[in-house]
Amino acid sequence: MAGNSIGQVLRLTTFGESHGAAIGGVLDGYPADAAPDLDAVQEELDRRRPGGNRLGTSRMEADRVEWLSGLFEGRTMGTPIAFLIRNADQRSGDYDALREVYRPGHADRAWELKFGVRDHRGGGRSSARVTAACVAAGALARQLIGREGVTVEAFVSAVGNLALEATPADLSQRWTNDARCPDGALADRMAELIEAVRAAGDSVGGVVTCIIRGLPAGLGEPVFDRLDADLAKAMIGINAAKGFQMGKGFAAAALRGSQHNREPQGGVLGGISDGGLLRFDVAFKPPATIAQAQQTVNRAGDTVVLEAKGRHDPCVVPRAVPIVEAMACLVLGDHLLRQRLSRV
Amino acid sequence: MAGNSIGQVLRLTTFGESHGAAIGGVLDGYPADAAPDLDAVQEELDRRRPGGNRLGTSRMEADRVEWLSGLFEGRTMGTPIAFLIRNADQRSGDYDALREVYRPGHADRAWELKFGVRDHRGGGRSSARVTAACVAAGALARQLIGREGVTVEAFVSAVGNLALEATPADLSQRWTNDARCPDGALADRMAELIEAVRAAGDSVGGVVTCIIRGLPAGLGEPVFDRLDADLAKAMIGINAAKGFQMGKGFAAAALRGSQHNREPQGGVLGGISDGGLLRFDVAFKPPATIAQAQQTVNRAGDTVVLEAKGRHDPCVVPRAVPIVEAMACLVLGDHLLRQRLSRV
Amino acid sequence: MAGNSIGQVLRLTTFGESHGAAIGGVLDGYPADAAPDLDAVQEELDRRRPGGNRLGTSRMEADRVEWLSGLFEGRTMGTPIAFLIRNADQRSGDYDALREVYRPGHADRAWELKFGVRDHRGGGRSSARVTAACVAAGALARQLIGREGVTVEAFVSAVGNLALEATPADLSQRWTNDARCPDGALADRMAELIEAVRAAGDSVGGVVTCIIRGLPAGLGEPVFDRLDADLAKAMIGINAAKGFQMGKGFAAAALRGSQHNREPQGGVLGGISDGGLLRFDVAFKPPATIAQAQQTVNRAGDTVVLEAKGRHDPCVVPRAVPIVEAMACLVLGDHLLRQRLSRV
Amino acid sequence: MAGNSIGQVLRLTTFGESHGAAIGGVLDGYPADAAPDLDAVQEELDRRRPGGNRLGTSRMEADRVEWLSGLFEGRTMGTPIAFLIRNADQRSGDYDALREVYRPGHADRAWELKFGVRDHRGGGRSSARVTAACVAAGALARQLIGREGVTVEAFVSAVGNLALEATPADLSQRWTNDARCPDGALADRMAELIEAVRAAGDSVGGVVTCIIRGLPAGLGEPVFDRLDADLAKAMIGINAAKGFQMGKGFAAAALRGSQHNREPQGGVLGGISDGGLLRFDVAFKPPATIAQAQQTVNRAGDTVVLEAKGRHDPCVVPRAVPIVEAMACLVLGDHLLRQRLSRV
Repeated sequence: MAGNSIGQVLRLTTFGESHGAAIGGVLDGYPADAAPDLDAVQEELDRRRPGGNRLGTSRMEADRVEWLSGLFEGRTMGTPIAFLIRNADQRSGDYDALREVYRPGHADRAWELKFGVRDHRGGGRSSARVTAACVAAGALARQLIGREGVTVEAFVSAVGNLALEATPADLSQRWTNDARCPDGALADRMAELIEAVRAAGDSVGGVVTCIIRGLPAGLGEPVFDRLDADLAKAMIGINAAKGFQMGKGFAAAALRGSQHNREPQGGVLGGISDGGLLRFDVAFKPPATIAQAQQTVNRAGDTVVLEAKGRHDPCVVPRAVPIVEAMACLVLGDHLLRQRLSRV
Repeated sequence: MAGNSIGQVLRLTTFGESHGAAIGGVLDGYPADAAPDLDAVQEELDRRRPGGNRLGTSRMEADRVEWLSGLFEGRTMGTPIAFLIRNADQRSGDYDALREVYRPGHADRAWELKFGVRDHRGGGRSSARVTAACVAAGALARQLIGREGVTVEAFVSAVGNLALEATPADLSQRWTNDARCPDGALADRMAELIEAVRAAGDSVGGVVTCIIRGLPAGLGEPVFDRLDADLAKAMIGINAAKGFQMGKGFAAAALRGSQHNREPQGGVLGGISDGGLLRFDVAFKPPATIAQAQQTVNRAGDTVVLEAKGRHDPCVVPRAVPIVEAMACLVLGDHLLRQRLSRV
Repeated sequence: MAGNSIGQVLRLTTFGESHGAAIGGVLDGYPADAAPDLDAVQEELDRRRPGGNRLGTSRMEADRVEWLSGLFEGRTMGTPIAFLIRNADQRSGDYDALREVYRPGHADRAWELKFGVRDHRGGGRSSARVTAACVAAGALARQLIGREGVTVEAFVSAVGNLALEATPADLSQRWTNDARCPDGALADRMAELIEAVRAAGDSVGGVVTCIIRGLPAGLGEPVFDRLDADLAKAMIGINAAKGFQMGKGFAAAALRGSQHNREPQGGVLGGISDGGLLRFDVAFKPPATIAQAQQTVNRAGDTVVLEAKGRHDPCVVPRAVPIVEAMACLVLGDHLLRQRLSRV
Repeated sequence: MAGNSIGQVLRLTTFGESHGAAIGGVLDGYPADAAPDLDAVQEELDRRRPGGNRLGTSRMEADRVEWLSGLFEGRTMGTPIAFLIRNADQRSGDYDALREVYRPGHADRAWELKFGVRDHRGGGRSSARVTAACVAAGALARQLIGREGVTVEAFVSAVGNLALEATPADLSQRWTNDARCPDGALADRMAELIEAVRAAGDSVGGVVTCIIRGLPAGLGEPVFDRLDADLAKAMIGINAAKGFQMGKGFAAAALRGSQHNREPQGGVLGGISDGGLLRFDVAFKPPATIAQAQQTVNRAGDTVVLEAKGRHDPCVVPRAVPIVEAMACLVLGDHLLRQRLSRV
């Protein structure tokens, strides 16, 4: 059933497959009388775009947003903001071999068992390309929460075994390197690792950390629509995400209360923002598609050997950074608006 | 705004504060013509109940479910199944000192900043007591998914630094010890650790792992209502939960694709169940309330020293096991029903 | 699937069958820090209650609300307000004959074809008794919108062919007679008609009109969640309601624009309140159960003759008045809160 | 807040303003593996299109649907079906005079009081043009319910005082005349009336009746998401709709139960379809915009005289016929799918 919407008050519905005519979204519930900076939206999209980062795939996606509705004379109307991004570089031929074969570690087989049919070209709807719509909508949400002084900054905190030890106060440097890491020296090592992995026909996982400042206390709706629970859903919904933790997360499991009580709690208590800095991590698995022959099954149920064609990312975390930020902005925008409803 | 419901097709709305008249829930969307075993529901509640486990608080909660609607002559009617559990052991006097003071590491202050008012008795709505309603509803959901052969088994896989190395095939032993760990020897050590931590006036965190068998392929609605994303939301919504991971989770971030592709993927690919065993972990922080004097602030903004009164859990994970199972059953019940809608 | 909730921001979920243990509801999203007058809620329930009106059934229902959650020291907490009303006068024996027979003009057969099972006692969940939960929640919503100066007054404007010609400015007189009509002389004639119909073993339909004053302009969310559309859904959802119209409604269909533009438009334009008096009508059919033998079918498919037992209303509109008011209050409360979200 | 979606399982979200770049929609929850006839969708749109009916406005709207997603090799994928219709004939200059003036009987002023801003060109989002997206999505829903043998046929049953007395068995003739009335002789008189009203610079209201055949018993979710309640919301949400009635509707209010029980009940009992023919009526007001000078107010609050420019419909009911059908198909499609969830 319908499952392509996220948010209650500020609700994004996305559409589109990687090799269909277009991807896009409808952002409903965006308040009227704002004057969004649409160039800034395009800039955020460019950060996610393949081809904009030498550590990613060499696949080029222009990703120009076309605005369809909801804006008039530069202002939001209170009506749904619809937009689309054409799918330009559709080398569908690259994917012909996949019509009868399920890629290992991908949704191909599960998708076909669910729906009975499948768009085999580049993963169709399960492609990470469809997150571009989230980035565009998230950029609008960022401008909304920015009015309240909220900033959202994600960065790569680990690639493989290379992990950031201490978080720098200034995160802006993450945009100056392709690894999207705020520590320049570590970023260089991460880039080397990713290139080495690519050269080996392999892939590698990583972690994206997100830090949110300026968040007022009181956001989150107990007991189910907690702020951290909604963030968890949004993050685990990103392609290849396999883990989510608030504050110290899994490390907290090993601590005593007397220790943990002295630590920052990740900015959320009882599901409600506490006015402090909010921090969470998202773990991403290594991309399943690698330049090595792998065993898999085809539609007939036979075991076959598959060699990936096309152009693929050896590591998704650098490109996941703007997606994590976008999803966080959408969740926060929704909850900032919901917070208007908490008292008489 | 309204945020106390979870699920789309099978939807649970819960209500109640820990020291109000009652807690309870309304489970809407449960299909008609089932004959639920209500004694089995009560048994599941008894597993969550404080006082039923020597490793927990000595607070006694009888937790008898009273069924209000939705059942007639032993069968479900297709109408909302409402139930309540009276709050019996309400030593509110224990909490008088908390009217003006915010407990450290609790939602007290964030709650008051959100709503302007707060029920200071035992955390009110933010108390873990309210999860009893989830356990009751989850037990009904378990019977629904059990019809399709799905089983849900959670257990304690870590307490502090004591971690289960290998998962036994037979998990049933977890109910034979108070640590809720399927490895009896480790369970003994966990129990010792928890008692030592209690004796030291401290608390300790841990991890609950959940294994789901018999799940058909095809569950989950891309792109936002993915199965893993909905599980993440449900789990992070449990009191004290700070982390969620599918399959290898955070460990996957350090792996190469050539390694990870050989591992089980946690039962979900692209947000859709793949027909294999589903596995996830939930990290819980150590309880914030410990039997030591702690600095905190009061409503006037002054720093004060608080010594906890009342009876508290030194470790929540044993009692979290039935809650994790219940939330998983609710998510799976919802998605099993949603799956009926995927094809013409 | 789940269908027992109404409202988005202020959301009521109801439960209960007429002859089960209890009926009740959970009102989620009610803002914190209000101090509701619970005696006033009970007064509204007493107006709906059978036995409180000599024109209705002689069935006695005490309808005492028991509050379960959401309130502490007289104030709302921002948590779900749950309440129940026990079903006391359950002469189930009256209904034994209906186990195998479908009453004509009732939901019995449709219900059984939907769910496969049916509570044959007094209509079960399809009984008008379950609207008592709406009246209780609606009374709370009335107090919320009353803070903004909004008043909601419904009254009987027609019984059979007896119709009110002009609406008096003062509607308070409707509570001084059993016909719930603000024109005392007409109320007497309506009462006579209803008694004559009852004496003849028959029933009669009628119309309830609702007038809302003090409503600010701007309520309603185009294009689907319009204020009038949400009112229509709420009203047609009341038992026995068969028609809904705004302003001049069906009469407008026969007018020229040059005439109609000079008329008040019912308080809504393009689905949004225009700041004027809002007016709508709801048509109710005559109750299907009458004290005459009627042909119907049984579960075996045979045509049988049914003579109604039990105590029944010859006309529902007097008792529908508080229900119409309650549903209107719920819709307006929801939209008044939603309106906080319309602008940056 | 977000209010531009309708349906739970089959959910349509629409977007667009009459004079923006495009209107369109996203239909989520449409089951996979169907092979929709897209030419048939276009045909339905052509019936709603202005310029396609000599009784309507002479404004030409080409209304070509462009499909963006959800379809692959002629089949539905289970993914959102997004589509758009470009706004071609945008004589925005026609509307310059309306920047500072509120049209009487339109949403202009209410809209501006809600959102603070307004697109003054042709009503913006409140224009009936945006219903084209509903017609496109409704045409897809029609094909879905058609698989189950359900047919939906609406027609004009009244224009001003000209009303159809008896409903012909064969309704197909409604498409052979511009009045969309299945009685050819009456259609001629309706057409004459509409032309006379246009010549007089006036407008006229009317009624659309809808008949649904082949509907299985059991559709509708008590107590709030009843089938008739959802139809009421969908119909009153259509531009200029002012009344909705099931079966005999307002006429039933004047009947005795002994009479009414002998009548068909409109196909719904207790909110659930009963397996019989379903019938409802929708009343439409005369269009507010007429070719006569009318008094209104401007943004400064002054009373001014407005003479309508542009091209307008003297009567909306002929063009409302496909819209009523589309909205009914969407509601029925949603409920047919929901019905799969009613039993274990």
